[in-house]
Amino acid sequence: MLPLSKLCVHTITTKPWPIEVAMDKYAAAGIGGITVWRQALEGKNIETVRAGLASRNLEVVSLCRGGFFPAADVKGLQAAIDDNLRAIDEAAALGAPMIVLVCGAVPGQPLEKSRDQIVDGIQAVLPHAEACGVKLAIEPLHPMYADDRSAISTMAQANAACERIGSPSVGIAVDVYHVWWDDALPDQIRLAAQHNRLFAFHVCDWMTPTTDLLNDRGLMGEGCIDIPGIRKAMEEAGFDGFNEVEIFSNRWWSQDQDAFLSRIVSAYQEHC
Amino acid sequence: MLPLSKLCVHTITTKPWPIEVAMDKYAAAGIGGITVWRQALEGKNIETVRAGLASRNLEVVSLCRGGFFPAADVKGLQAAIDDNLRAIDEAAALGAPMIVLVCGAVPGQPLEKSRDQIVDGIQAVLPHAEACGVKLAIEPLHPMYADDRSAISTMAQANAACERIGSPSVGIAVDVYHVWWDDALPDQIRLAAQHNRLFAFHVCDWMTPTTDLLNDRGLMGEGCIDIPGIRKAMEEAGFDGFNEVEIFSNRWWSQDQDAFLSRIVSAYQEHC
Repeated sequence: MLPLSKLCVHTITTKPWPIEVAMDKYAAAGIGGITVWRQALEGKNIETVRAGLASRNLEVVSLCRGGFFPAADVKGLQAAIDDNLRAIDEAAALGAPMIVLVCGAVPGQPLEKSRDQIVDGIQAVLPHAEACGVKLAIEPLHPMYADDRSAISTMAQANAACERIGSPSVGIAVDVYHVWWDDALPDQIRLAAQHNRLFAFHVCDWMTPTTDLLNDRGLMGEGCIDIPGIRKAMEEAGFDGFNEVEIFSNRWWSQDQDAFLSRIVSAYQEHC
Repeated sequence: MLPLSKLCVHTITTKPWPIEVAMDKYAAAGIGGITVWRQALEGKNIETVRAGLASRNLEVVSLCRGGFFPAADVKGLQAAIDDNLRAIDEAAALGAPMIVLVCGAVPGQPLEKSRDQIVDGIQAVLPHAEACGVKLAIEPLHPMYADDRSAISTMAQANAACERIGSPSVGIAVDVYHVWWDDALPDQIRLAAQHNRLFAFHVCDWMTPTTDLLNDRGLMGEGCIDIPGIRKAMEEAGFDGFNEVEIFSNRWWSQDQDAFLSRIVSAYQEHC
C-alpha cells in the first residue's frame, strides 16, 4: 500500500477550503505533502502560511502555477515575465522548491511561435529562479488546451523545450490527465529521467463522459487512466517524489470536503 | 477563391434538415459534394436518396460512419463487424465510394489492445468492402476522445494501422479539428500521401473557449486552426479531393439553417 507520506494534495483540489483549513485537514489525515496554488495565498501573509505548514510537518512540494509566457505583443511578453518573477519570489518566501508552469498559448498564433516564446520566457526568469533555489517544472497539457493554455502538449515537446534551455533547474511535471493517451509516454518518461527532468507527478482520472473541459476531472479510480501503470513507469525511470492529487471538479467541489478528502486518501491507496 | 465544386457538406452539419431538404439546399447553393450520415438515411429508401442526389448533381463523397470496432467481449466485437458490413452495404447502395471510420475505444481497456481490435475489425470487413468497391477511411480523433471514441488519436497511429493492414482500400480521413495541434502533422500527411492514403479532408474550427467536448465546433474562421495551412500541406502532398465541412454545433443547429448554409459557403471561400 502506498504510504501517505508520499501523498501530496493540491490546495485547488479542495478549493472550498481556505489554506488554514486545508493544512489542518491534510495534516490530520496523515498526508505528507501540499502543493499550494497561488490564489490560496491571496491576502495571506506567506511567512505565516509557511510557519503553519512547517508546524504541521506538511512538506511544500510546489507552488502552482507560473507560465503563460506567450503573448501577442511585447507588453504581454514582459507582463508574463514579471508575473513569473513574482511567482519565484512567492515560492522562495513559502519555501517551495519548485514552480509548476502551465506554459501558455495565444489562440491563432502558430504553436511553434508560442513554444519559442515559452523557451524565451523561461530563460528570462531562470537566473532569478536559480538564485532563489527554485526549480521550474514544465507541465505538458492535454492537446485540448493547445488553443489558449499550453503550446506544449506532449512529453516530447516538454523534453525538447528542456533540451533547448539546458538547465538542471528546468524539468517536467507529468500529469496523468494530460499524457495518458500518448503512445510515446513510456519512452519520453525514460528520456526525461535520463536528463534528471522528472520533477513532479500529478494524478487524477479521466471521466467518461467528460462534461467540462476544465473542471470535470475524476478522483483516481473513477475513470479510464491506468494510473498504476504510469506511476510504475515513473518509478522504474527513477522518480521517487510525491504523488500529487490535483483534481478540478465542480462535482467534487460541491460536496462535503471532509468526505472528499477521505475518498482521496482511500483512492490514493487503492488506485494509484 | 476555392471553387464550390470542391465543397462538400456533411448532412450532420445541417442536422435539423431531413436529407431531402439538405440535398435541395446544397444543390441550390452550388455545392458540389455531400457526405451522408447514416442517421440521415434512417427510414428512407436508399435508392430514392441516391437518385435524388444524382439528379441534383451532388457527388456522394462518403458515408459517415463506420468503426467502433473495440469491445470488451467477443459478442461486442462481432456486433461491430456486423454493423460495419451493413454500413458497407449502405454505402454501395448509395453509391458512396468510401466510409469514414470512427474507430472506437473501450474506457479502461489498454489503447494498444483497442488498436489491435481496430486492425482486426477492419481486416474482417475488408473483403466485403473491396468486393463492393467501397474504401475505408480511418479518421484519427482528437486525444480528448481516446477514452471511448477512438484509440487512434494521431496521424502517426492512423498511418501505422494502415501499414499493418496493407490494403489500397484503407486510408485516412484528415479532420483539422482532430489533428491541428500535432507537430508531426506535416510529416505524417506526407507519409500518408506516399502510400496513397489521403482519402478525405474535413474542415471546421476550434472554439476558444470550447464549452462542449462534442458539439461546440466552430465554423471555419471562428477559431484558432490554420485551415489554409493544413489544406496547403494536403494539396502539396497530392490530395485533390473535396473540402468537407463537418460541424457539430448545438449553437449553429439552433439557428436558421438557410443562413447557416450561406455562412458555410462564405467561410469556405474566405477561411479554407
